[in-house]
Amino acid sequence: MSDILQREDTGAITTLTLNDPATLNSLSDDMLAALSAQLSDIAQSTQKAVILRGAGKAFCAGHNLRQMQAMRQAPDGGAAAFADLFDRCTAVMAQMRDLPQPVIAQVHGIAAAAGCQMVANCDMAIADTHTRFAVNGVNIGLFCSTPMVALSRNMPRKRAFEMLTTGDAISAQDATELGLINRAVAPDTLAQETIALAEKVASKLSSAVRIGKSAFYTQIERPIADAYALTRDAMVQNLAQPDTDEGMQAFIEKRAPNWD
Amino acid sequence: MSDILQREDTGAITTLTLNDPATLNSLSDDMLAALSAQLSDIAQSTQKAVILRGAGKAFCAGHNLRQMQAMRQAPDGGAAAFADLFDRCTAVMAQMRDLPQPVIAQVHGIAAAAGCQMVANCDMAIADTHTRFAVNGVNIGLFCSTPMVALSRNMPRKRAFEMLTTGDAISAQDATELGLINRAVAPDTLAQETIALAEKVASKLSSAVRIGKSAFYTQIERPIADAYALTRDAMVQNLAQPDTDEGMQAFIEKRAPNWD
Amino acid sequence: MSDILQREDTGAITTLTLNDPATLNSLSDDMLAALSAQLSDIAQSTQKAVILRGAGKAFCAGHNLRQMQAMRQAPDGGAAAFADLFDRCTAVMAQMRDLPQPVIAQVHGIAAAAGCQMVANCDMAIADTHTRFAVNGVNIGLFCSTPMVALSRNMPRKRAFEMLTTGDAISAQDATELGLINRAVAPDTLAQETIALAEKVASKLSSAVRIGKSAFYTQIERPIADAYALTRDAMVQNLAQPDTDEGMQAFIEKRAPNWD
Repeated sequence: MSDILQREDTGAITTLTLNDPATLNSLSDDMLAALSAQLSDIAQSTQKAVILRGAGKAFCAGHNLRQMQAMRQAPDGGAAAFADLFDRCTAVMAQMRDLPQPVIAQVHGIAAAAGCQMVANCDMAIADTHTRFAVNGVNIGLFCSTPMVALSRNMPRKRAFEMLTTGDAISAQDATELGLINRAVAPDTLAQETIALAEKVASKLSSAVRIGKSAFYTQIERPIADAYALTRDAMVQNLAQPDTDEGMQAFIEKRAPNWD
Repeated sequence: MSDILQREDTGAITTLTLNDPATLNSLSDDMLAALSAQLSDIAQSTQKAVILRGAGKAFCAGHNLRQMQAMRQAPDGGAAAFADLFDRCTAVMAQMRDLPQPVIAQVHGIAAAAGCQMVANCDMAIADTHTRFAVNGVNIGLFCSTPMVALSRNMPRKRAFEMLTTGDAISAQDATELGLINRAVAPDTLAQETIALAEKVASKLSSAVRIGKSAFYTQIERPIADAYALTRDAMVQNLAQPDTDEGMQAFIEKRAPNWD
Repeated sequence: MSDILQREDTGAITTLTLNDPATLNSLSDDMLAALSAQLSDIAQSTQKAVILRGAGKAFCAGHNLRQMQAMRQAPDGGAAAFADLFDRCTAVMAQMRDLPQPVIAQVHGIAAAAGCQMVANCDMAIADTHTRFAVNGVNIGLFCSTPMVALSRNMPRKRAFEMLTTGDAISAQDATELGLINRAVAPDTLAQETIALAEKVASKLSSAVRIGKSAFYTQIERPIADAYALTRDAMVQNLAQPDTDEGMQAFIEKRAPNWD
């Protein structure tokens, strides 16, 4: 386990804490590598939900600008290194979506640029009411083009466009109303509210949640007929699980399912 | 007319009432067959709007679990029967979207699982303020994968994901704010508000509404250039109707159109 | 400069004023031609933001019905002329999206039919609180099929469907909550609020905004993997700008960028 990314497993819930507060938990090379390694490991595990949070004053303020500026020393001015950086970052985002377990962002302080992208990319997100969300790369001349992929799929496009071209931050309340997060809660209840959501999801039949999460992101990009064809197959696969048979039978018999 | 599905035509408005309150209007084999037959009949008729509602305590609580459990007796454990069931259900959803007439869900009590899918799938929906919406299959180990196709196209994805993985119900007010329904009204005005909306739609030029509804669902899934090409053709087809010529001329002459 | 469309450049901000108040700034042949010509010119310029507004009582009430009715005199009843009209209108909408500069609609009075489409099509929109938005062609027998392409990509589909089939107008507050506009402001502050937004956008590094706006509309229609591949390339292109290097370095050194 890398020090830059702390992992704690409490029962079936894994908490990943971005732990580089001096850079506001920037997505440095080490951080991306640590996230990739942990997500690969969690994908193979029987854990049932993941919480992603940040240590210190912010959830995550985006990429590591010092590392990026250093990449400019290469003969090509950094072009190859930049492309590789975004490919690695995109791969981590994809790992989160492809992870069998739901990933919940626990957001506080600031979620900016690729940090805001990570919130948008998670399956669910809870923030404390003081959190600020921004895709503010435009302020330094670097439009948040990769973050907008996740952002524009999670909120109305005119509001996303405004955030991207003004660099202005929005509040946690706005983020809730726009659909970027699930809800905002008081700062002193953020951790317990996020754990409560993770525990609720973890209390469900894991095989069903895994089938459903996988189908969610596949179907949402497909034409509706294709989406129904693939979710039909997901339902048939889900119904073939003995635990699902038991869950349905228990419901009919008005008793609790015997899943353990 | 099947007893399990009541049909009443009042002028140009057809009301379909799911009438199996003992199963909370479950989408049983008989119910799906009755819906399919009635929708086929309505599609050929000159009716101008359809209201879909449920008798008894709920709008619809989803599939018929007893029938599904019985399907498990087949040599393949029910796999073929389950696939067939979802194909039949998906076909009914498609019939509603393909229906020339707008379909308005009049929702009360509970809209759960495939019942919530049906709300999302209708063109418009009005609910009473006490209605609860859920895609709660996960609670019995059967993720609502087919319902999420309609759900995730009608509300922000993080909120849909939460409903799907927690099984939690949302209120009619939340459903309104999220876009899942058009609005929530007091229980004692639900019927009249729904009829008023149906009558308003039915008062429009039927040929125009039919062309528009058909184009709506086709264009929304296409790249924008294709969407504009097909809606251009819809406009040209619409303009070729003599009644549209009359409507435009009447507007210019500041008089009511002579459409009867 | 055509009289029907006034252009004023104040610093880096161009304001286009639809100036045919007698027809509520209808999108007549002349208006579409003037818009196309000005947008082509602006695309080649170094201007940094565009404001689109209407003179008189309304922003824009849609197509010019008198001109359309006159097209019916052709041997084909107008079919070819109508198709050409919608192609020209669609091309103007595409010019706005393809324009390097962000386009902000400054909306007051009425935005109806293709006028509402134009609001939906702009990158951002601010309206005064008294503005009414409608896609009301259905009231004269001409469903707003082309406007719905833009509308249904900017607000929840059930609410769009209701507007289209009832012809009912929504308020500026509703338009804000639904995502159709960015916000509603008091009538006497509309101009200054819109200018303030335009100036904020214009204060950003122009090369970054241009790369980002172009990527925004391309990526939003692509599968997520393709969207990330193309925005990665946009980021690499953006990073190759010397001004972006300066912007990033200035941020690290906690000083203002030396951009001119």
